[in-house]
Amino acid sequence: MLQKFQNHLNKNLPFLKGKKLLLAVSGGIDSMVLVELLHHLKFDISVAHCNFNLRGDESDGDTEFVKSTCEKYSIKFYVKHFETKEYANLHKLSIQVAARQLRYDWFNELLEKKGFDYLLTAHHLDDSVETFLINFTRGTGLEGLTGIPQQNEKIVRPLLIFTREDIEEYSKENNIEWREDSSNASDKYLRNKLRHKVIPILKELNPGFSDSFLQTLENLQQSESMVDDASRIVYHEVVQDSDNEKRINLSELMMLPNYQAYLYQWLKPFRFTAWKDIYDLVSAQSGRQVFSEEYRLLKDRDTLILAKKNELKLEVYPVYEDVENLNVPLKISVCNKSDFRLDDKRCIFADKDTLKFPLEFRKWEEGDYFYPFGMTGKKKLSKYFKDEKFSLIDKENTWLLCSDNEVVWVVGKRADRRFSVNETTRNIIKIELK
Amino acid sequence: MLQKFQNHLNKNLPFLKGKKLLLAVSGGIDSMVLVELLHHLKFDISVAHCNFNLRGDESDGDTEFVKSTCEKYSIKFYVKHFETKEYANLHKLSIQVAARQLRYDWFNELLEKKGFDYLLTAHHLDDSVETFLINFTRGTGLEGLTGIPQQNEKIVRPLLIFTREDIEEYSKENNIEWREDSSNASDKYLRNKLRHKVIPILKELNPGFSDSFLQTLENLQQSESMVDDASRIVYHEVVQDSDNEKRINLSELMMLPNYQAYLYQWLKPFRFTAWKDIYDLVSAQSGRQVFSEEYRLLKDRDTLILAKKNELKLEVYPVYEDVENLNVPLKISVCNKSDFRLDDKRCIFADKDTLKFPLEFRKWEEGDYFYPFGMTGKKKLSKYFKDEKFSLIDKENTWLLCSDNEVVWVVGKRADRRFSVNETTRNIIKIELK
Repeated sequence: MLQKFQNHLNKNLPFLKGKKLLLAVSGGIDSMVLVELLHHLKFDISVAHCNFNLRGDESDGDTEFVKSTCEKYSIKFYVKHFETKEYANLHKLSIQVAARQLRYDWFNELLEKKGFDYLLTAHHLDDSVETFLINFTRGTGLEGLTGIPQQNEKIVRPLLIFTREDIEEYSKENNIEWREDSSNASDKYLRNKLRHKVIPILKELNPGFSDSFLQTLENLQQSESMVDDASRIVYHEVVQDSDNEKRINLSELMMLPNYQAYLYQWLKPFRFTAWKDIYDLVSAQSGRQVFSEEYRLLKDRDTLILAKKNELKLEVYPVYEDVENLNVPLKISVCNKSDFRLDDKRCIFADKDTLKFPLEFRKWEEGDYFYPFGMTGKKKLSKYFKDEKFSLIDKENTWLLCSDNEVVWVVGKRADRRFSVNETTRNIIKIELK
Repeated sequence: MLQKFQNHLNKNLPFLKGKKLLLAVSGGIDSMVLVELLHHLKFDISVAHCNFNLRGDESDGDTEFVKSTCEKYSIKFYVKHFETKEYANLHKLSIQVAARQLRYDWFNELLEKKGFDYLLTAHHLDDSVETFLINFTRGTGLEGLTGIPQQNEKIVRPLLIFTREDIEEYSKENNIEWREDSSNASDKYLRNKLRHKVIPILKELNPGFSDSFLQTLENLQQSESMVDDASRIVYHEVVQDSDNEKRINLSELMMLPNYQAYLYQWLKPFRFTAWKDIYDLVSAQSGRQVFSEEYRLLKDRDTLILAKKNELKLEVYPVYEDVENLNVPLKISVCNKSDFRLDDKRCIFADKDTLKFPLEFRKWEEGDYFYPFGMTGKKKLSKYFKDEKFSLIDKENTWLLCSDNEVVWVVGKRADRRFSVNETTRNIIKIELK
């Protein structure tokens, strides 16, 4: 195994050479073999050990054991004790999730503060097989069948190509000591059933199972990379992407027989879960929406618009003449007739004496109307929006500037003629978007 | 199950309604339940039953049983007896492959001759789970994990969303009779192990396993469709496709970090298997090749050329003056000076009296030389090819027309000046590519 490990490091993980490595070590067989291998190959390693205080004396025994091994080898040893149960209760987490959070928070802290280049963990091929089968049993997609990644960013798993048998054999041959790992993983029952009942049968049916599985993983990872390519290429053709929102052109999207696959790929990162609702949305009426925790997807005519959820509180902000107006993106200044312009949507000029301060800055409401500048008569805002082909999101993002509850300005869009400058105006003010 | 089956047919297989359907029926529980369901729903069905003569009386008992059921229901019954073992021996096939060939040959014959629209088989969800696990155990790629297809062309599998338990339950409730199927599939051992030892554990770990699995299959099929999209899109960018060959532009291909995935997708249909050799080929010397049964992939400078294998037999075909020249794409005609042109690569004009018939039409050989028209001196063919930047395939596809073993024409490329028309020529012949 040592030779194979060395070749594997040279060929697939050459960047580890000469780097400062932190090993996550529980004291179980996998991590103790990893310590032994890297120590033997004279890598620059330190050890980080978590004591989660979940198994009393046993936890402390693990800590003592890892510590003494490190002393024997003169390896720098870091240990931290966690009040895992208390943390889990406090944050309403399962013990498993709590332990993971605590562990990785601390590891990241060590990486940063002590200047380590990589964190190494001792996951091996059978962990990957188990993860594959757990996901498969529960139901998954391609992303759940591509195994544990060999590397994500600073975390590297150099034992991933080795089986549990490889590791057990090496530990026997080299008299490596380790402590039985009575892990508290919540999927322990599932994992043990698969480990002891299912995987042995697969290995019996195909004695070369581990190699086949490695090849399967590689094939699936290749396919996954092609899925990513297709997703990206089609995205650029079908989606208009701006800072605040993404607009998916439905008539283009629906030309793809597998458009659902694309929607899934694009929307997955925004943590949507109601996939059936999303697939129905493409043929739903304008105005229908589907929500994730932070985002929403809105059907608007020939488009699906993805945007952050708006909190539709109908708040009114006061707008004063002569003080800084907090939370309102408007600037008010006195000016004279020579400054007067009409061609800028970002500002209006109003007859100051027709206004009653403080003005109000608020979202529009059903029933609002105004007297559009340049027109005779009055018009409902809803009618105006329709004529101007505003989308639902456009409408919701529309603010009004009002005086005594009369619309002075559909902000950034259209002024009201009742407050506009005329020949009798004595005092002009300019109101502009900051 | 009847209700669910009816809904499934209406929703997912509406095209079966009113069509002429042929059912493949062994007499086992799955196919007997399918007969019962479709008969009950008044579909227009006939039954095709194969007797492979592999289990003596038992096979004949199956045939009798299916026949009598069809008689009871007034369903048209087709049966064929096969000498499976003899066929297998004759064609050097396993019994399993032989039975499959015989079966589908006959089914296709029936479809065509009797005007059936579809062939229906009784594969169900557990067959799909087993196929998934068999492929997974042996090692596979995405294509091996997408389950048995619900339809390929004329073959439809309407029970694929039902589990073995669904089918067993329905057969009990409706007193459906069936014969124990002692199939002779060569993967029987594998399949039974998975069926009895592995799948029950997966179902115990997740009571909703069957539904999860259906969803997993759908997800993987979606991913597969995106892989196909990426493959097609990138192919059009990187591959120059003509009738005889495909040229993969390596400098463009190698810009993709996952270029191996694309090579795999593109070359798989040509039955290549030596993938490692193929991946090495991209950085190999010009002239290196990898073969499949019918094709070869040739590294030629910045290109991988895919073409049919050429049988490099160095044959010489005689070319006569006045008879039809079989197997040779040349036409010879007498002509006068007014027809004489130089600007057509597809023909030459030669001084007939300098030629010795029959001419020879053959592939070039190392050591061949000629006296290029329009040049002084002679030139080796190999030098000429190099100067003209011929690829290996271009060279191999080059034919020579010779007279008394002297090159008259590098066919379609360049004439030899020794046989060319000059002021003393009395008889001109035109030799052209047909």
